[in-house]
Amino acid sequence: MTIKLDYVNTVPFVSDQEINDVLIRHHELLRTVLAPDHDNSNDLGWVDLTSLANDRLLESIEKKAREIRERGDIFVLIGVGGSNQGARAVIKSLGDQQIEILYVGNNLSPRYLQTIMAKLAGKSVYVNIIAKNFATLEPGITFRVLRQYLEERYGREEAAQRIIATGSLNGSSLEELGKKKGYTLMPFPLDVGGRYSVLSAVGLLPIAIAGVEIHELLRGAKDIKQVIHSQSPEKNDAVIYAVIRNILLAKGYRLEILAHFEPALAYFAKWWVQLFGETEGKEGKGLYPTSCSFTEDLHSLGQYIQEGQRLLLETFINLEDQGETFRIPVEDTDIDGFNYLNNLDFAYLNKNAYEATVQAHVDGGVPCFIVNVPELTPYYMGQLLYFFEYACYLSASLLGVNPFNQPGVEAYKEKMFAKLKG
Amino acid sequence: MTIKLDYVNTVPFVSDQEINDVLIRHHELLRTVLAPDHDNSNDLGWVDLTSLANDRLLESIEKKAREIRERGDIFVLIGVGGSNQGARAVIKSLGDQQIEILYVGNNLSPRYLQTIMAKLAGKSVYVNIIAKNFATLEPGITFRVLRQYLEERYGREEAAQRIIATGSLNGSSLEELGKKKGYTLMPFPLDVGGRYSVLSAVGLLPIAIAGVEIHELLRGAKDIKQVIHSQSPEKNDAVIYAVIRNILLAKGYRLEILAHFEPALAYFAKWWVQLFGETEGKEGKGLYPTSCSFTEDLHSLGQYIQEGQRLLLETFINLEDQGETFRIPVEDTDIDGFNYLNNLDFAYLNKNAYEATVQAHVDGGVPCFIVNVPELTPYYMGQLLYFFEYACYLSASLLGVNPFNQPGVEAYKEKMFAKLKG
Repeated sequence: MTIKLDYVNTVPFVSDQEINDVLIRHHELLRTVLAPDHDNSNDLGWVDLTSLANDRLLESIEKKAREIRERGDIFVLIGVGGSNQGARAVIKSLGDQQIEILYVGNNLSPRYLQTIMAKLAGKSVYVNIIAKNFATLEPGITFRVLRQYLEERYGREEAAQRIIATGSLNGSSLEELGKKKGYTLMPFPLDVGGRYSVLSAVGLLPIAIAGVEIHELLRGAKDIKQVIHSQSPEKNDAVIYAVIRNILLAKGYRLEILAHFEPALAYFAKWWVQLFGETEGKEGKGLYPTSCSFTEDLHSLGQYIQEGQRLLLETFINLEDQGETFRIPVEDTDIDGFNYLNNLDFAYLNKNAYEATVQAHVDGGVPCFIVNVPELTPYYMGQLLYFFEYACYLSASLLGVNPFNQPGVEAYKEKMFAKLKG
Repeated sequence: MTIKLDYVNTVPFVSDQEINDVLIRHHELLRTVLAPDHDNSNDLGWVDLTSLANDRLLESIEKKAREIRERGDIFVLIGVGGSNQGARAVIKSLGDQQIEILYVGNNLSPRYLQTIMAKLAGKSVYVNIIAKNFATLEPGITFRVLRQYLEERYGREEAAQRIIATGSLNGSSLEELGKKKGYTLMPFPLDVGGRYSVLSAVGLLPIAIAGVEIHELLRGAKDIKQVIHSQSPEKNDAVIYAVIRNILLAKGYRLEILAHFEPALAYFAKWWVQLFGETEGKEGKGLYPTSCSFTEDLHSLGQYIQEGQRLLLETFINLEDQGETFRIPVEDTDIDGFNYLNNLDFAYLNKNAYEATVQAHVDGGVPCFIVNVPELTPYYMGQLLYFFEYACYLSASLLGVNPFNQPGVEAYKEKMFAKLKG
């Protein structure tokens, strides 16, 4: 089975004719992008899932993960943006609680770092610094703090055994540092940008440490890749999704909400936001990507989505099997007014709420995609990750922007460095 | 001292003339809304801070909070939307860690509830159910689960001593239930909607349980209220904020991002999103409210904000004193390339990043408000809460929508109940 796109709730807003026009106009572009033997050089390393994570690498990841799971109480992931979002998305969705995982190097708040450091006392701590080029401030200085902490506490030799450095292995300063200190090194692939890196060592090591089956994740990604490359554009979910959202953008829609009914997916949604925002938000273009965790946000943004400016579209992640049951206890007398729900299951109510929400939003003028996911497992998570990566690449290609750069991220950095160095 | 609005970075986008035109056109409306003796009936109960939390109520809240802090390990807050967002915003910003606080009844995920219930074993548990009319599904059925759990574990009598019910005390079904069972009752004011309820018992009890000085919170709110009601419109921060964001909306801006550089404020931002989204998102109107936690989100949405569609404005919360210091450790040789930051403080870098971000975004075509906050304390948090409540009320009044209803929230509920009951 695979995840499936259902776009019936966009039909009131986008006609078949409009879809066909785009498919015809961009026939050549789509053919090129979808070709299985498509050029994988430059920034397209993430398409080649086998070289991204070959058997030898997987073996060394699993060995390291086993060691850390056995010996560690806390695993500190130092990274920001593409260097932590993919791992965090999968871990928060699927990870077990055997080892506590803390995320640092993703802000400059002294209060935040103080709180994290206070948690380390008396615990067995392992650290993974993840930085492609090791030029970004936040992970750079936070790693200084953690490195010195470990060295003081464990001595240089044992500290080195507790640190894994994931960076470009082409002579980057992180690689140099790691070699000098004797850290375990993991490769950040040269031809993969951060936001497309989750299925490389960047994401897979932390994910394995959280107890998630990384082989299953990769098997899911490979299976959906196979589907994407074998279907003709007009029957291809990734293409249809990319085409319709571009049509809606052209018609004046301005925001896309990734919506789900499972709080565990909140960080998956954050990964998706970076993927689409950083890929498409340039040259004055792109849908603004944001997310909602329902039903909670129905009691917050629900009013706006239903009746505010008509500029939203929504993409729902629908978990067909929610993985748990939780029956509503019975009360003999209707002491609280909820006896009409006696003995029903939370999953059943959640499903009803989801279906009602889609209907209400479509009726209110919000085009809705649904991505049907059989269940929340590593296998289907792998499908979701690759599906959205590919759909995003397609969508940006249709939009006419470079899917793999992020020139705008430099603007504030330049001003900041001018202050700091000037 | 008070929090202060700085709108110099909206000047390139909105002229003095445009502001004056709105002030003149809406002179009468502003005069009415700002009058200190303004009619506080109906949904305006939140304006009267003293009757919202009189001395007797405060005393009973503090007594209960002390008891729970002494005897409890875990405090479970059951509520959704206006019933938990205010408390959660303040607790996540300022609460101590003496007692663990869990938030439930805010979704229908069986997986989520399963995880929460697993945490309760062996711990001393207290529960606060917060629901104005006790008709909402999520808190209703989740309270059933918790109530039965406590009764089985502690017996009916002790369970009742561990439960506080906060609801309308006008014969609501929650009040009836509480009386029958012998729960402690707390008032959800009749003339206050959920999203304006944080400074009533709704927010104050959980906030006090988290160890936050509620007198300071209220003192801050009262002081900023005094300022708002004593300043003429053209010098009034709440008015100027409301006026400029309405002008920007009229000019085609579509989204407002509440941005901050302190992760502890993430839930404050969520409270703000509900406040503005639910208040203004109706009749096809209103800026779509969303939030960013920087610097993290500079590595995610930063690209879009800098170079995507020009339809964004930003409101920055600037913490002038960040409350902690954390010095970057020195390395003698520049082993990692970050020696230019030797001995600097995280707070200093965070401040530089903030200033650089505002400059970069303004240069990129994003109008930016700044709300300068001397420091993150209960006193200034109280100011922030009341300031944004009042500014939101003003803004919706200028926009010409009812600031206190939320008719669109019913749309999905009707469809859901039709499914469940039909």
